[in-house]
Amino acid sequence: MKAGTPALVGARHPLLRRFREAWRRGELTEDGCCAVEGLHLVEEAFRSPVEVVALLAARSAEERLGRFEAAANGRVRSYVTSDRLFRSLAPTETPQGIAALLRLREQPLEECLARANALVAVLMGVQDPGNLGTVLRSLEAFGGAACLLGPDTVSPFNPKAVRASAGSLFRVPVYRRLRLEEIFGACKRHGVQTVALAADGGRRLSDVNLTGAAAFLVGREGSGLPGEVLSRADIVARVPMTAGVESLNAAVAASLALYEAARQRGFAG
Amino acid sequence: MKAGTPALVGARHPLLRRFREAWRRGELTEDGCCAVEGLHLVEEAFRSPVEVVALLAARSAEERLGRFEAAANGRVRSYVTSDRLFRSLAPTETPQGIAALLRLREQPLEECLARANALVAVLMGVQDPGNLGTVLRSLEAFGGAACLLGPDTVSPFNPKAVRASAGSLFRVPVYRRLRLEEIFGACKRHGVQTVALAADGGRRLSDVNLTGAAAFLVGREGSGLPGEVLSRADIVARVPMTAGVESLNAAVAASLALYEAARQRGFAG
Repeated sequence: MKAGTPALVGARHPLLRRFREAWRRGELTEDGCCAVEGLHLVEEAFRSPVEVVALLAARSAEERLGRFEAAANGRVRSYVTSDRLFRSLAPTETPQGIAALLRLREQPLEECLARANALVAVLMGVQDPGNLGTVLRSLEAFGGAACLLGPDTVSPFNPKAVRASAGSLFRVPVYRRLRLEEIFGACKRHGVQTVALAADGGRRLSDVNLTGAAAFLVGREGSGLPGEVLSRADIVARVPMTAGVESLNAAVAASLALYEAARQRGFAG
Repeated sequence: MKAGTPALVGARHPLLRRFREAWRRGELTEDGCCAVEGLHLVEEAFRSPVEVVALLAARSAEERLGRFEAAANGRVRSYVTSDRLFRSLAPTETPQGIAALLRLREQPLEECLARANALVAVLMGVQDPGNLGTVLRSLEAFGGAACLLGPDTVSPFNPKAVRASAGSLFRVPVYRRLRLEEIFGACKRHGVQTVALAADGGRRLSDVNLTGAAAFLVGREGSGLPGEVLSRADIVARVPMTAGVESLNAAVAASLALYEAARQRGFAG
């Protein structure tokens, strides 16, 4: 195979197996890579501090590889497969014919929390991958330091979460499968105030001083945060709403809290 | 058929055709009814100012009809169909076996805009039904008066939009397929300030006085508002973001604007 000619791969090729397995399970590959599909996400990967391990194109989108190979300066292997095979693998109904395997940067949680006035989102039991991705996008927009995921929370590598994050997953550190003790312990060690977001009760969000380090705790769609979390948090806060309205979308609630903190800090943007 | 015994209906029954047609097209039925599925949405319908025209249950969920029939006080007709048929109709992969046809209340747009300090969202080209539904939910939470939809915007009756609205679609008036002239004209007549939300440029949202009547204009995911809208709006505003971040999720951007307006008004909630 001469340099610059991508390898043509069939259904049994190990690379396709890695993509298929990752997307089917909504998880990392066995060797810890994140599989992404679509022109925008692949572009985002190339402008993020991640390692692009491999590129895969459908035959009809093969010409899209060129610019990415140039951007990678020969440091990435490209593969091409048939349109039919690509479609059978891809997590979307109308795939764009370009995909990548990425290795995300890892950073110790303690480093993120130690940032001055760190802004953190903690998702506890959020089930909708779109909500998780949207929170990552808002976190990046407001200069957030990290996203912590409690037990029974959807995977950030679910293709819908990756898509909703619009690439923020490649830049905002995410920590998974944390126990309650780990979350509250780490926040305490680093002086990060824990603010539980509730649909009612607690203080009005805009009445809480959010100019110091703060972690916003967001619960499961529908049921919200468990009582144990509400009682352990430093503060319970609510977004004031019209009487009779049950709750906001979970990603919206988290985003409003991040916005309010940024606003109080005079975030210029 | 004795009173209280729901009719058992098969695939060719006109009622099932109405559900199938509505869900397949993501639209109202031909006679203007909204089809909804799931326990939560049917419950929401019963606590909203809508007319419940018919209830449909899957055989295995038939006992769920009782409480709704009681709530309707005999003013609604109930139907039961086989689980297999129900599943084949329903817009979700794991339906809950209960559905309803609703007639939403209609209210003249001018009435909504005439409300004191009316808060309005105007979606122009938003494609994601989840985003539209989420905006409706936030609108209701912050006491919004109406949602206006410009050309090429997803239908609010798309099942994913209905679901994401968590019932707010039954209570917040939505106006569809409005031309630019209609939107700007109606806002002008009622002294509603038009605020175009942009990813960059314009004034910081928190620097704009939002205590009077205001309509927030939100553009298509990815491309945002067209230049013509930006130039016709009274104000262009942005949510301050970290340098290099392209944009927020469209529903999040709209929700932040509604929150900011509510905050400035001292919305107690």
